[in-house]
Amino acid sequence: MKVIVAHAAKDVRIEERPEEMPGPGEVRLRLATGGVCGSDLHYYNHGGFGSVRLKEPMILGHEVSAHVERLGEGVSGLAIGQLVAVSPSRPCRHCRYCLTGLPNQCLNMRFYGSAMPFPHIQGAFREILVADAIQCVPADGLTPGEAAMAEPLAVTLHATRRAGELLGRRVLVTGCGPIGLLSILSARRAGAGEIVATDLSSFTLAMALKAGADRVINSREEPEALSAYGVDKGTFDVLYECSGAASALAAGIAALKPRGVIVQLGLGGDMSLPMMAITAKELELRGSFRFHEEFATGVGLMQKGLIDVKPLITHTVPLANALTAFEIASDRSRAMKAQITFT
Amino acid sequence: MKVIVAHAAKDVRIEERPEEMPGPGEVRLRLATGGVCGSDLHYYNHGGFGSVRLKEPMILGHEVSAHVERLGEGVSGLAIGQLVAVSPSRPCRHCRYCLTGLPNQCLNMRFYGSAMPFPHIQGAFREILVADAIQCVPADGLTPGEAAMAEPLAVTLHATRRAGELLGRRVLVTGCGPIGLLSILSARRAGAGEIVATDLSSFTLAMALKAGADRVINSREEPEALSAYGVDKGTFDVLYECSGAASALAAGIAALKPRGVIVQLGLGGDMSLPMMAITAKELELRGSFRFHEEFATGVGLMQKGLIDVKPLITHTVPLANALTAFEIASDRSRAMKAQITFT
Amino acid sequence: MKVIVAHAAKDVRIEERPEEMPGPGEVRLRLATGGVCGSDLHYYNHGGFGSVRLKEPMILGHEVSAHVERLGEGVSGLAIGQLVAVSPSRPCRHCRYCLTGLPNQCLNMRFYGSAMPFPHIQGAFREILVADAIQCVPADGLTPGEAAMAEPLAVTLHATRRAGELLGRRVLVTGCGPIGLLSILSARRAGAGEIVATDLSSFTLAMALKAGADRVINSREEPEALSAYGVDKGTFDVLYECSGAASALAAGIAALKPRGVIVQLGLGGDMSLPMMAITAKELELRGSFRFHEEFATGVGLMQKGLIDVKPLITHTVPLANALTAFEIASDRSRAMKAQITFT
Amino acid sequence: MKVIVAHAAKDVRIEERPEEMPGPGEVRLRLATGGVCGSDLHYYNHGGFGSVRLKEPMILGHEVSAHVERLGEGVSGLAIGQLVAVSPSRPCRHCRYCLTGLPNQCLNMRFYGSAMPFPHIQGAFREILVADAIQCVPADGLTPGEAAMAEPLAVTLHATRRAGELLGRRVLVTGCGPIGLLSILSARRAGAGEIVATDLSSFTLAMALKAGADRVINSREEPEALSAYGVDKGTFDVLYECSGAASALAAGIAALKPRGVIVQLGLGGDMSLPMMAITAKELELRGSFRFHEEFATGVGLMQKGLIDVKPLITHTVPLANALTAFEIASDRSRAMKAQITFT
Repeated sequence: MKVIVAHAAKDVRIEERPEEMPGPGEVRLRLATGGVCGSDLHYYNHGGFGSVRLKEPMILGHEVSAHVERLGEGVSGLAIGQLVAVSPSRPCRHCRYCLTGLPNQCLNMRFYGSAMPFPHIQGAFREILVADAIQCVPADGLTPGEAAMAEPLAVTLHATRRAGELLGRRVLVTGCGPIGLLSILSARRAGAGEIVATDLSSFTLAMALKAGADRVINSREEPEALSAYGVDKGTFDVLYECSGAASALAAGIAALKPRGVIVQLGLGGDMSLPMMAITAKELELRGSFRFHEEFATGVGLMQKGLIDVKPLITHTVPLANALTAFEIASDRSRAMKAQITFT
Repeated sequence: MKVIVAHAAKDVRIEERPEEMPGPGEVRLRLATGGVCGSDLHYYNHGGFGSVRLKEPMILGHEVSAHVERLGEGVSGLAIGQLVAVSPSRPCRHCRYCLTGLPNQCLNMRFYGSAMPFPHIQGAFREILVADAIQCVPADGLTPGEAAMAEPLAVTLHATRRAGELLGRRVLVTGCGPIGLLSILSARRAGAGEIVATDLSSFTLAMALKAGADRVINSREEPEALSAYGVDKGTFDVLYECSGAASALAAGIAALKPRGVIVQLGLGGDMSLPMMAITAKELELRGSFRFHEEFATGVGLMQKGLIDVKPLITHTVPLANALTAFEIASDRSRAMKAQITFT
Repeated sequence: MKVIVAHAAKDVRIEERPEEMPGPGEVRLRLATGGVCGSDLHYYNHGGFGSVRLKEPMILGHEVSAHVERLGEGVSGLAIGQLVAVSPSRPCRHCRYCLTGLPNQCLNMRFYGSAMPFPHIQGAFREILVADAIQCVPADGLTPGEAAMAEPLAVTLHATRRAGELLGRRVLVTGCGPIGLLSILSARRAGAGEIVATDLSSFTLAMALKAGADRVINSREEPEALSAYGVDKGTFDVLYECSGAASALAAGIAALKPRGVIVQLGLGGDMSLPMMAITAKELELRGSFRFHEEFATGVGLMQKGLIDVKPLITHTVPLANALTAFEIASDRSRAMKAQITFT
Repeated sequence: MKVIVAHAAKDVRIEERPEEMPGPGEVRLRLATGGVCGSDLHYYNHGGFGSVRLKEPMILGHEVSAHVERLGEGVSGLAIGQLVAVSPSRPCRHCRYCLTGLPNQCLNMRFYGSAMPFPHIQGAFREILVADAIQCVPADGLTPGEAAMAEPLAVTLHATRRAGELLGRRVLVTGCGPIGLLSILSARRAGAGEIVATDLSSFTLAMALKAGADRVINSREEPEALSAYGVDKGTFDVLYECSGAASALAAGIAALKPRGVIVQLGLGGDMSLPMMAITAKELELRGSFRFHEEFATGVGLMQKGLIDVKPLITHTVPLANALTAFEIASDRSRAMKAQITFT
């Protein structure tokens, strides 16, 4: 079978690997669609990010959907041929975080396509994938492309739960890449009353409007527009920080109400924060990392038509041209989510 | 001007009263639409409920929309002729609850159409209403009927905030009168993943499906249907108790998950509760009473098309036939919300 | 070895059983002290409570301390001869509640001395006890009697966490048995500013004062005293309901502030609740059931001298006279906690 | 009467001002004791901090106790000669934050001795002070020195509420000035199980031990000691950041558990934060600013002997030598809280 392997920055190859057979509790899957995520792009373009660096070849990919091909011993609840969304999150279910309801903090996590431990955790961009049955969420009624969006959607649903109750609240989203747009969809689904989004790209801002933002601000063209929201100590209840830019965060902080909540989604390096404003307005900055049960939650919401991710999928490329997908996805002026089809 | 006055059980009259002029900070309004609420029906049918009894004639009504006719001194932000939803909630803004962010618990509350203090607080079913400008929420874009739904909608939005974060959660609604149906709409807006509703009337259950319930259960016809949700300690995260029936509450409690939340909306008398289940499953029973800022929140959500209350308005009756509205609204086998038009 | 076995109401016997040896991960313990709990008394006096009934002989006891006698294979962190508090809670660590941080809701719980499943879960009143190492919390520096209080203390520490933040808050405790008194100690430890306790017995109320209550009220002698706390909608932030009496709960509810919290600790039958007050004051009734990590927390707090349970232990009886302990403990006019010494 | 006026950095003078008489609702007080706070020191040493600068002469002081000398019209609940703690917080009680339970965020706050608005808010270091009766909390049973500690104690009680439930939790305090030490006292009062404190000064660390810290770490002498707490993602549940030093905060973040809470108390400039750790461990950074009802709470806790601040008062200086107090208080190697006596 073919797999997509990152060797180093700008050195990603399609290679042949032997197929595997499912053991007890496992399922053999034929991959349908794989989405290119920001971390895949970091490996592709830079060989890693921050202190996380490629030290051996690693199969990329953690946003995937697939069709069930064979059930291992003892597996029930899945049918041959069924479309499933495959969760890349594999907590150990035994460590102290797993046992206190924080599996996303598992001490022994094996999340697909991560160069953080060594040996690296190999990813899911492979024609045949053997996975635990528990990772597979039936996605009947969805397209393979939608099902492959379950992973990034789970990230923003988790962030939305971290944000707290949103009904009728005013929400600011800084950064309109796929995570920013899914934050808009998730915040709206959770009842947000008003959503304003900022970015530097007119393309992503147009997409943000399509995703349901009430207003978008191009911070390059209207650098002062956000400051109007800062009167009387501020307007927004919640800020989804998806840009990783200290300037965007600082501008957002000035526009937040006292006791406002910042959900930090991006994984970046050190960042300089306006502590005076955070303290004096008693803001709350909350990190949000991956997800757990929100993966199945997201599939369910898409199946019921309560969240529609289809407009975010701007490019679909066959496996043979997979490297093109990485190039396209790297260009924020024209692409939102780029996906690779494996069949 | 004409007003609708309750004198005693089954003695509600349309009477003449002198019109008033607005003072500073006040607005003179020409009433558009008034909805008949459960408490209005209690006064109409029984002269009160529990220990709350009519002791003098009282103008009914607290679900109203109106057009602005004249602005008192110092009022801005409202225009002559503009449609407004009028909040019946008038907290004092000085007592200790007002100053701790709980105006719905105000010690000096003057909520329209309440026989709880004496002299009673007169209601809003009158052709001309003088109100504080702060009670008036611009309702441009809504029909007068929708705007008059802002009050009961605020009740369920408040209850939804009391319920806590709902994104992807499983919700049970017991009792499908107007408050039950608005609970369905509110829970869905806040992200509920699955909503099951129970009642004894096939009419209200059909309405519940229209309002977005995923499944309805007629507790009379399928008395055991809910118990299937009780396996492994239960299924539902949240229960909106809108029936006031101890049997419905007990059945709901058996179907709730450990740590599940019951939001108690109905104002009833003493009720026998299965304390063993509440304790052993560590459930949380939370009272929810009226609302405050959720009134404006609801108007905003309706204006954006994020909540649609129109299907709930089943009957509209002119002021001249107002008494018919009370009769219709009392019949849960054919009416959901009955409204009276004043112009 | 000798064990204490309940056969039926008023039929508790000291019997001989074969000793056991520890397997891997287990520890063999020589029991030091065992406290008599309310549920032991229910089995002793009535053969059970509610729907929980003795259906076969059951060793009683779940409040025990012991000395380590032998370590099973792979056990570390415990020393021969060391005093330990033994947690009676044995969740499965695999079910969905264990994996979401709610082990006290475990679907396969084997809690010592419980007649709820059948076959019953045998208890810990035995001279030699083989337990999982994970159940044993080192109790160096404590007396065996204190260490045996870790279990009921864990119950009230758990309840205190359920109550939410208590710093400077006003707390009411209804019912001054051991759980009521430990609630006073726990609430004070968590920062309660004012603690009022009610009961019908002058003995327990005197003990409550010793435990740190600021004021006690004998509801029989001063039936109106609590109502003074009900002015302006109420005074108390939190109510620990430890009496199981509907009248105490109703009086407490009238004295609670809007948004006040009731923690329900007692396991009783159905109870009639004033739903009007709960709804109108938006109270929160929260069940609290057993504990988990609070067991070790309590041992630590006692070791640091931050909680002192010694004054609660009013009677200590040798194993030979164990039945006396049940009689003494049943008499609330002279006994608080009665304990049995096994060595 | 004499007052203490800051004109510029290192230019603080004792001057004469006319005495005032109390109006309705006001009280005339004879000052007893005034504590020197960190912000007083900033004005004294640097003429301000960050963007907050002295632009006109300003009476310093906001930590004061006093004896009641005369009651204005309509004042009750206070007696001539009574010792009171005087809250420096004067919210308007009408703005939107006052009306939503956040008076510490008041848009029109007049907090004693603040150069933030212009004209500045004059402070309380004056022999005769006319204050609103509502600012005066009876302090019977306390020494004037203790009563003057009510203000900084309120700051850390507020921070402790911001921290959330602390019963049995592990707490880290970075920075052991008066606010750090009061954080230790407050966290312990709220039930903290283990408290570790860090600083660079052996004097303040010795004081921290006296205040109840379980362990202190001199970050200069043992720069690696804290990192031992970082294994398996971390040990502490809560971090009180009282140092204002980015390095202390970063070291603390590494030692916090996933979902740990950082309460930020110091008002400093921009600070560089390790966002990767905050995001990946899903930490929560919460600003804490001033206080409101915690002022009276603290007085009550001191009166009951539940918090003892006396050991923190290291220096007491008569008004005539007030400038010495500022010098002493500036030297963290020998002084904790320095106070000025006005009578």
